[in-house]
Amino acid sequence: MPADVDELIAGLERGERRALARLLTIAEDGRPEQLRQVIGALYPKTGSARVIGITGSPGVGKSTLTNAIATELRTAGRSVAILAVDPSSPFSGGALLGDRVRMQGHHADADVFIRSMASRGHLGGLSFATPQAVLVLDAAGFDDVIVETVGVGQSEVEIAATADTTVVAIAPGMGDGVQAAKAGILEVADVFVINKADHSGAGKLESELRGMLEMGHATADADTPAGWWPSIVRTVAVRGEGLDEVMAAFAAHGRHLNSSGDRERRVRARALHTIREIALEQVRLRFSRLGDGHDPLLDALAAKVAGRELDPYTAADELLEALDGGVA
Amino acid sequence: MPADVDELIAGLERGERRALARLLTIAEDGRPEQLRQVIGALYPKTGSARVIGITGSPGVGKSTLTNAIATELRTAGRSVAILAVDPSSPFSGGALLGDRVRMQGHHADADVFIRSMASRGHLGGLSFATPQAVLVLDAAGFDDVIVETVGVGQSEVEIAATADTTVVAIAPGMGDGVQAAKAGILEVADVFVINKADHSGAGKLESELRGMLEMGHATADADTPAGWWPSIVRTVAVRGEGLDEVMAAFAAHGRHLNSSGDRERRVRARALHTIREIALEQVRLRFSRLGDGHDPLLDALAAKVAGRELDPYTAADELLEALDGGVA
Repeated sequence: MPADVDELIAGLERGERRALARLLTIAEDGRPEQLRQVIGALYPKTGSARVIGITGSPGVGKSTLTNAIATELRTAGRSVAILAVDPSSPFSGGALLGDRVRMQGHHADADVFIRSMASRGHLGGLSFATPQAVLVLDAAGFDDVIVETVGVGQSEVEIAATADTTVVAIAPGMGDGVQAAKAGILEVADVFVINKADHSGAGKLESELRGMLEMGHATADADTPAGWWPSIVRTVAVRGEGLDEVMAAFAAHGRHLNSSGDRERRVRARALHTIREIALEQVRLRFSRLGDGHDPLLDALAAKVAGRELDPYTAADELLEALDGGVA
Repeated sequence: MPADVDELIAGLERGERRALARLLTIAEDGRPEQLRQVIGALYPKTGSARVIGITGSPGVGKSTLTNAIATELRTAGRSVAILAVDPSSPFSGGALLGDRVRMQGHHADADVFIRSMASRGHLGGLSFATPQAVLVLDAAGFDDVIVETVGVGQSEVEIAATADTTVVAIAPGMGDGVQAAKAGILEVADVFVINKADHSGAGKLESELRGMLEMGHATADADTPAGWWPSIVRTVAVRGEGLDEVMAAFAAHGRHLNSSGDRERRVRARALHTIREIALEQVRLRFSRLGDGHDPLLDALAAKVAGRELDPYTAADELLEALDGGVA
């Protein structure tokens, strides 16, 4: 039985964690109409959180870094929510082992809220659910919403691209410099963190990274005259080393966002991304319903494609043509 | 420089592995028009491969099981391709460490082709790229195409649901029985493999599974009168134990597919799934182009949403309404 949305939102306004958790569950895998109601009601209350994206390949110490950053932000008096987005995990929610282990560092600290999100639920998966969950956390009044993603997919790059400040974490000994470049991650980084900087190869990795940035800057920066040159910070997150420098980089980037007008651009980009993901989800829902055997045209097309009379691209063209005038 | 598609297809017909590898790369992250050309040309040559889906949570020994099954199929004289779909991996392609390690068991065996696919590339990610890659492997003439996926997401469930025979692998000591049920995986399994059956808890897991199947059967089977009762097989894949029983289960399920008409239904379901994914990718491409700042309506909507004058659902409705008549 889904709780009444108005009641949950009233609970959220009273600061109830249970209401927050349930609203996040709706963002993750609620019924579409319920989620529409939630976002419609919450939306006017959003817009004051700072969104920090933290991304990086498995093994760079991303979770440790995220926790260390959250601790620093708390020390500075800010309230913090962490949304840990993991497409490879079968676990969602806030009460599972992984989360409990991770929360120990913040055990007595009621203002760090950690939520894991896996790729269950909605058709559109995490690329759809993440912006909705960020809106819920924003409406809940957190000063900072950290979105931690494994930086391997197109959708994670998109998520990172819409944060106010995006951290790309790399580490020596994993070839991550090159991998990051391939994933299109270089372009979205506002702050690079070279974690595990006490491992050998940190210096080499930093040189490699600076080289790549200079190459990119020489060829591709005509579009961004107000240019922010990404900070590069070394950390040993497990021992809390380098976190002051990370905070300084955040502050510097924040000043840049304000003075350059980039903050407004980011907020608009995030809004545009959210609109697009919702519109795409509406189309997905419609297509999904078509697939339940209720659409004679799609069934006929599938029979032809199954019989090799038609290739699937031509069939998709015919389907889209027939849907013209009625996609929503 | 993309090679000429006709040349690649001619190479594929001559059995050239390099042509196969390049066509798979196009399936994974080629330009949309190039992929359309590839699928259009290859499609008439597809339809003879058996598609086997193997899915399961991390840690159940899925890769070992997949390799053991491939070895059995080879022993029976069949040619085999493995498509290993891993949304958590940053690595794609056929020449990376993970693949080389896995290929050792089949080292001298030219008829097992292994390809890893990660969530790079297309906007639609793996849920779009996988059916295209299966078509390429089918056209290449493999008797069996094994699609191995981490069974955690909606898209993997969909992929599994369109295979001719779907194996769901579980293992004792991981709570996977319950997790599998939650992911909607129970419903798509034709064959359950309880791997690591030498570990304690295998018997308990099997009882739990049988209990859940009986519950599901009692409540949800009205739609499938020709019903196939999923086989349950125990294996110790690392030692090759239980593989004869897996092969017997495949054979029995194959007979069921033929006698019940389910094979045709599966082929049609796979065609329908492929059409839908392609149509959705076309819509995604269009939305993605809109997002580059080239669409005055979307820009205006984003500005209103950013200013909290409009919620993103209402904006998405307006966008879709405006697109009516021109989605393709």
